[in-house]
Parts: sequence; C-alpha cells; structure tokens
Amino acid sequence: MDGRLKPGHDADMESVWTLHPQLAADTVAIGDLSLSRVLLMNDANYPWLILVPRKPALVEIIDLEEDEQVQLLGEIADTARALKATTACAKLNIAALGNMVDQLHVHVIARNLGDAAWPKPVWGTAPPASYERAARERVVEDIRRGLQIAPSR
Amino acid sequence: MDGRLKPGHDADMESVWTLHPQLAADTVAIGDLSLSRVLLMNDANYPWLILVPRKPALVEIIDLEEDEQVQLLGEIADTARALKATTACAKLNIAALGNMVDQLHVHVIARNLGDAAWPKPVWGTAPPASYERAARERVVEDIRRGLQIAPSR
Repeated sequence: MDGRLKPGHDADMESVWTLHPQLAADTVAIGDLSLSRVLLMNDANYPWLILVPRKPALVEIIDLEEDEQVQLLGEIADTARALKATTACAKLNIAALGNMVDQLHVHVIARNLGDAAWPKPVWGTAPPASYERAARERVVEDIRRGLQIAPSR
Repeated sequence: MDGRLKPGHDADMESVWTLHPQLAADTVAIGDLSLSRVLLMNDANYPWLILVPRKPALVEIIDLEEDEQVQLLGEIADTARALKATTACAKLNIAALGNMVDQLHVHVIARNLGDAAWPKPVWGTAPPASYERAARERVVEDIRRGLQIAPSR
C-alpha cells in the first residue's frame, strides 16, 4: 500500500515474448535461431522470410542491446545467404520497417527481375499470391536445411 | 600476349570507390563515418538518410566481410539514434533494397504518422518534395552534430 508499482506483475507480462497476431496470421513458422524466430510470408510472389527477435517489447533495432544487435545481424546474414543459395535470386531486399506491425521484425526477401513488384518494393505493390501446399513446404524445408534449424513448434 | 587478363587494370578500377551517380544526383553529402558516407535524400517529405559503405563493388550486405558488416551495423545504429534524437520521429525505417541502384546503400528514414506516405514505405509512394535551402542545411547540421562528423567534401 505504499503506492509504488509492483514490479512483479508488469515485469512478468513484459517478460513473455509472443509473436504479434498479425505476423502469426500472415506467415508460417520455419524454426528458431538463437535470437530470432524465422517465418515464411504467405505470399508465393516472392520467397519472403521474416526474422522476429524473441524478446518482448522491441520496436526498433536500436532497442536491442549492442551484442543482441550483432547477433541479429549474424542471423540476418545467415538467412540472406540461405535464401540466396536456395533461390538463386537476383537481389536481396532486407528491411526493418514496422509501420503497420510494431513488433520488431526484419524482412529478408528474394527478388528477381520480372517478379510481381519488380523493381518496386514488395509492400503493398501486388496482391499476395497463394502458395500451393507442396511448394510452400518445399521452401520451408529448403530454408530449414540452409539454416540447419528444426521446426519451432 | 598470353591471353590472361591483366590483373593491374581491372583491379585498379575496382579498387577505387566512387558514389553511384544516381545516389549523387538524389542526395547531398553530410559526411563520412569510418566505413560509410552519410547522405541526405533530397526529399523534404521525410528526414531520409542513406549510408553508403566506401568500398568498391558491393551490392549486398553479405558482400562485406563479417567485421565490416558489424561496422556497418554500428554506423546504422548510430545514424538511427542521431536521426531519432534530432527528429523525435515515431518510427525508423531501415532498409537495404537496391533494386534500382545496385551500389550497396542503406536507407535510414524518420517516419511519422500522417507523413506523405504513412503507413506505406516511402519508395515510389509520394512525389519528392523540395527542401528550402535553410531547412535542408538545418537537417544536415543536426545530423553532423549528432554523428560528430565533418563535411565529407
């Protein structure tokens, strides 16, 4: 009754990371790296991965501690290499935007001349295309193998 | 006359970094960090910085050596913090796309609710707005002070 905030409650709430519901709705999970969950965007127009650091209350890359930023960079680079190796894409697009979904997430997208948005950025340019289940599973398995990770759930 | 490429010529050409002419045309130089040149995009719609590592023949972040990637990350984080501190922006957008200009460059953009493209990405969304000279110089000086750098040329 001394008027101070009880550190237990809010701290506990903040300490549990959960994937933002919009990201959960738009993706399938590929697996977990040390820091980040790796997701595949439900859009067959482009092989499109998303990394989400599994730490609560992050919005910006600079919200991470410096060593965590370096860890995220390493995971971005590993993911970019795996994506480039499995897709032989012409260009990688890597971005942390977060204007629509405020949970920190990093897009790693394989782009090719003549893809549905080329040369524009992918966001909001072309309507998402549905994956056939087998094609989607093939991308998921390719990335799992490239990153040497097991399913996250 | 043995048909081999002469290593001297091409290697010399490749060893000299110059700013891509499209980036030069679209920006003003703010200054140089250890690895990157810092540029201000000529678009008053958003405080919009671009980092260009001063090393030739780079297209992707993963073309950099690992220690250079970490250096670039540090410069991105410093630039993001300086931009956020001077603009009090609602969100940072950080991206390496390169679909139009193939020289590796990283966008660091201050976004605000109700800006010319919000909540969309800035690329290709709204026509660029001209800076008044004094306003542009103010942004340049603020970022120079925030990053503690002198003019690069």
